[in-house]
Amino acid sequence: MATKKKTARLETAESMGARQRDISVSEFFLKNRHLLGFDSPRKALLTTVKEAVDNSLDACEEAGILPEISVELRQIGESRFRVSVTDNGPGVVRAQVPRIFAKLLYGSKFHRLRMSRGQQGIGISAAGMYGQLTTGQATRIHSKTKAQKSAHRIAVQIDTKANKPVILEDVELEWRPSYYSDDPHAEPKTYSHGTCVSIEMEATYVRGRLSVDEFLKQCAIVNPHLQLHYRVVLQKKNNNGNDNGQVELIPEDEPWTTYERAVKTLPPPSREIKPHPHGVELGILIQMLKDSPARTLKQALTQDFSRVSDKAAHYICETAGLSARANPSRIAHQESEALFKAINTVKLMRPPTDCLSPIGEEQIIAGLQKEIVADFYTAVTREPTVYRGNPFQVEVGLAYAKPGDNEDLAGDDPIRVMRFANRVPLLYMGGGCAITKAVGGVNWKSYGLSQPKGSLPLGPMVIMAHMASVWVPFTSESKEAIAHYQEIIRELTFALQECGRRLSVYLNKRKRAAEAERKKGYIEKYIPHLALGLKDVLQFNDKQKERVEKDLKEMLERTHLEV
Amino acid sequence: MATKKKTARLETAESMGARQRDISVSEFFLKNRHLLGFDSPRKALLTTVKEAVDNSLDACEEAGILPEISVELRQIGESRFRVSVTDNGPGVVRAQVPRIFAKLLYGSKFHRLRMSRGQQGIGISAAGMYGQLTTGQATRIHSKTKAQKSAHRIAVQIDTKANKPVILEDVELEWRPSYYSDDPHAEPKTYSHGTCVSIEMEATYVRGRLSVDEFLKQCAIVNPHLQLHYRVVLQKKNNNGNDNGQVELIPEDEPWTTYERAVKTLPPPSREIKPHPHGVELGILIQMLKDSPARTLKQALTQDFSRVSDKAAHYICETAGLSARANPSRIAHQESEALFKAINTVKLMRPPTDCLSPIGEEQIIAGLQKEIVADFYTAVTREPTVYRGNPFQVEVGLAYAKPGDNEDLAGDDPIRVMRFANRVPLLYMGGGCAITKAVGGVNWKSYGLSQPKGSLPLGPMVIMAHMASVWVPFTSESKEAIAHYQEIIRELTFALQECGRRLSVYLNKRKRAAEAERKKGYIEKYIPHLALGLKDVLQFNDKQKERVEKDLKEMLERTHLEV
Repeated sequence: MATKKKTARLETAESMGARQRDISVSEFFLKNRHLLGFDSPRKALLTTVKEAVDNSLDACEEAGILPEISVELRQIGESRFRVSVTDNGPGVVRAQVPRIFAKLLYGSKFHRLRMSRGQQGIGISAAGMYGQLTTGQATRIHSKTKAQKSAHRIAVQIDTKANKPVILEDVELEWRPSYYSDDPHAEPKTYSHGTCVSIEMEATYVRGRLSVDEFLKQCAIVNPHLQLHYRVVLQKKNNNGNDNGQVELIPEDEPWTTYERAVKTLPPPSREIKPHPHGVELGILIQMLKDSPARTLKQALTQDFSRVSDKAAHYICETAGLSARANPSRIAHQESEALFKAINTVKLMRPPTDCLSPIGEEQIIAGLQKEIVADFYTAVTREPTVYRGNPFQVEVGLAYAKPGDNEDLAGDDPIRVMRFANRVPLLYMGGGCAITKAVGGVNWKSYGLSQPKGSLPLGPMVIMAHMASVWVPFTSESKEAIAHYQEIIRELTFALQECGRRLSVYLNKRKRAAEAERKKGYIEKYIPHLALGLKDVLQFNDKQKERVEKDLKEMLERTHLEV
Repeated sequence: MATKKKTARLETAESMGARQRDISVSEFFLKNRHLLGFDSPRKALLTTVKEAVDNSLDACEEAGILPEISVELRQIGESRFRVSVTDNGPGVVRAQVPRIFAKLLYGSKFHRLRMSRGQQGIGISAAGMYGQLTTGQATRIHSKTKAQKSAHRIAVQIDTKANKPVILEDVELEWRPSYYSDDPHAEPKTYSHGTCVSIEMEATYVRGRLSVDEFLKQCAIVNPHLQLHYRVVLQKKNNNGNDNGQVELIPEDEPWTTYERAVKTLPPPSREIKPHPHGVELGILIQMLKDSPARTLKQALTQDFSRVSDKAAHYICETAGLSARANPSRIAHQESEALFKAINTVKLMRPPTDCLSPIGEEQIIAGLQKEIVADFYTAVTREPTVYRGNPFQVEVGLAYAKPGDNEDLAGDDPIRVMRFANRVPLLYMGGGCAITKAVGGVNWKSYGLSQPKGSLPLGPMVIMAHMASVWVPFTSESKEAIAHYQEIIRELTFALQECGRRLSVYLNKRKRAAEAERKKGYIEKYIPHLALGLKDVLQFNDKQKERVEKDLKEMLERTHLEV
């Protein structure tokens, strides 16, 4: 078996230099597709749906349109699906379609500070690239904007070597997004604008906690303004065993499930903000000064940043020993370090935080009540705060079921944690998430739950936590878990503790009620005997005895109420 | 406090389209620098050293040079360090320096299947970018190749918007890498070629398990052919309190620590291999056919892939219904799916595995003995195997200390796990690593250790595990943990179990020895009384009594030996 080892050629600086070359970002992520959430056929399906739905929701909200979205998973082979997501959004202008859907690191959301679901410019193109990798097929997009008369249909693939779109089809056609409800007799609803993206890929459909079903259900909960239609069309097993790569005839009458929207208004629109000087690092400051359209340093400070007043700008310039009228791009090259130091000595208002759009305590409780059978619900939305200059806000909801009331929640299992970032459910990588870390870090014993050291507490309970931010720091490009920033964990902890205190009030009340109930039962049992005794001792007649029995019972009731 | 919310402008397809733009890969990672291992000043220092040392070792080995490397961490401000790493490698040709050190996704290792430490083309440029971000300073490179007469010194920064190097300095000069040993009187050693990279950055130096010290120590263990010099030059505290941004005078006489190389030969050079057809996905197959220099399909199959014989190529073509003489680039566009299916029905030899260069059982044990005070050492190097077409090989070493013998290893603490990938120590993110998962998944109770369910076992023990592969799948770009591929976890488990069995033999032997010792002590105590009794009963004289006592003792010794 021992094969002779071929000797590797020894390299020189020159031979190594000749082999150096560019790595396109598409090639990089193609090889490392587990970083994007495409490590298994099951996860690939979820990641694709998630990226498409995120984009649809963002587009609708930015355009002020109440979103209506349909998601179809259609099995077209043993382990092959076509994922189609249709929205009634503003549509995508024709010229942008190829790059938005077939180029990694391209988009409108990366270069701004504004709360949105997408932020990287990777997701949907990555899904298309995975489809292309596993099936060789193109991503197909239908889109119609309000301004355009007809729609366009475009098929694109990625040239992974160049990270550039290749257009395989580009036609005008009559098309409008249309929606079927779960009522098979209802007319489909159509809109005058919208987008449909369709990707074929190797995938596996599995139900359960990590499924597309679960993702969409949670999505509907935290986006109560969303009207959502969903269906999975599975291939019927073919018993003649003769496959030949032929696609089975698929039943067209598979019904849709509709999640009706609960509110008819959009969440308040999130606002774009400028970077806060105290969160900006030296290298970024230099870059910003270099790129500034402002003509003086003072202008650059007051216009390109948030919270810098004229007075603060003057103070900064003076402290740094710079002229307020200096050319910012000259500063970038020379005195930037002095400026950086000066900025960090001046007192400034904290970044504006009205740019965030949290779910809200009421909505969280409503969502939990819709989803979780429980006895006690509470929610806390914290005031916004800041990490690395980025405003963020944390919300926590809690539902506690009476033991036995909810068969999904066993009393001696770890509690269930539902995680959300900018209204997007996070299903995978819970172990690596700041939310899980914060929940495990709270001392739940003091609120009446049992808890293994540093772990999730045990009990029939669900925690949902939401982080809203102009920039969510994820632990990987697949956006499955929030990175462990101290400021984020601290805010989560405060919100969890407040919910915990309320839970402990409820649990104590329930405990006292149960005790009183037991006491009452105990006394009740002896009242007749007591009355009989009194009858003997005090020579009561039957009527008097009954009277005293009734009085005693009433007294007991009252005492119980006052326990 | 309630500020009036400014209304966000509603977008249209056109206004959104106008905001779409490219995101450069540098901008992306600058904002997400926690993905690259630069989330804290402490970790930034380690990541930088790691990337520079990885590059040096790779370059030396590829050029067949016994590596000598020096690492210097020099404090130049309250929280600012200059990291300098010098090697005696082949040097870098002048034209390549800027892109290698100041452009993300550029390199020679990504586009090949060969075992090496670097594989992404990100690391060292990312370190430079972090330095630039936090200090505004450039990366400085000294390099001299064998062929060049003089060295060159180049200073580069990244234009993060374009992901392109900006050259700030480029001069020729007299320079050679030189090394100081821990003997302050020894002459410095110089080489005729090598590279020194120097980066200033915001950083914190902390000792301990996650430190540069620990990284370099482990590095020396798994690279016994490496001669390593290391020093940390910290600023003395200045008591006059007058800083003014002035750099303190730094003592030049700070001594070096040298890790002497233990072997004078390089590990066998690792060999580049071609992709194995069974690990190639449809999209990659299409790309490879399109790019193939071969003129016929048969040639493409036999030359661009490993393990495809003429016969196999013919069989594949026939099964796919294609001509062996077809033009591969035509196939790429049309019948690739048929070809893909045909490839996956043909039997092929598994990928060549002699391309890997494991550490070896002997070296692992030697390394453990050098580092860990213990009583029992063992190691297992598994045969190479394959995941997703990539050959890989797993090695596990185990050291078990007698309780109390090693104060670093408490008997009731979880064991310590040292992780390595392609001879690089992995310090962070142990919780997310396939190695930790495999260790926790083994049933250590059956080998005599206690173990909380699914967790690391407890005991005075160290496990070291190494994965060698032509492509290590990391969980993030910072290369801190190995992704959970089933095939990798399985191999690790087999190696761990084999070590576990050997451990249990040792533990049983020790247990029996301890028992026999106790038994012996017990009997010994009674031998004199027994002898006395015999003297009485059998009327022995004193000499006979002594004789019998001696015989009994001897018998006991023999019995003990045979226990």
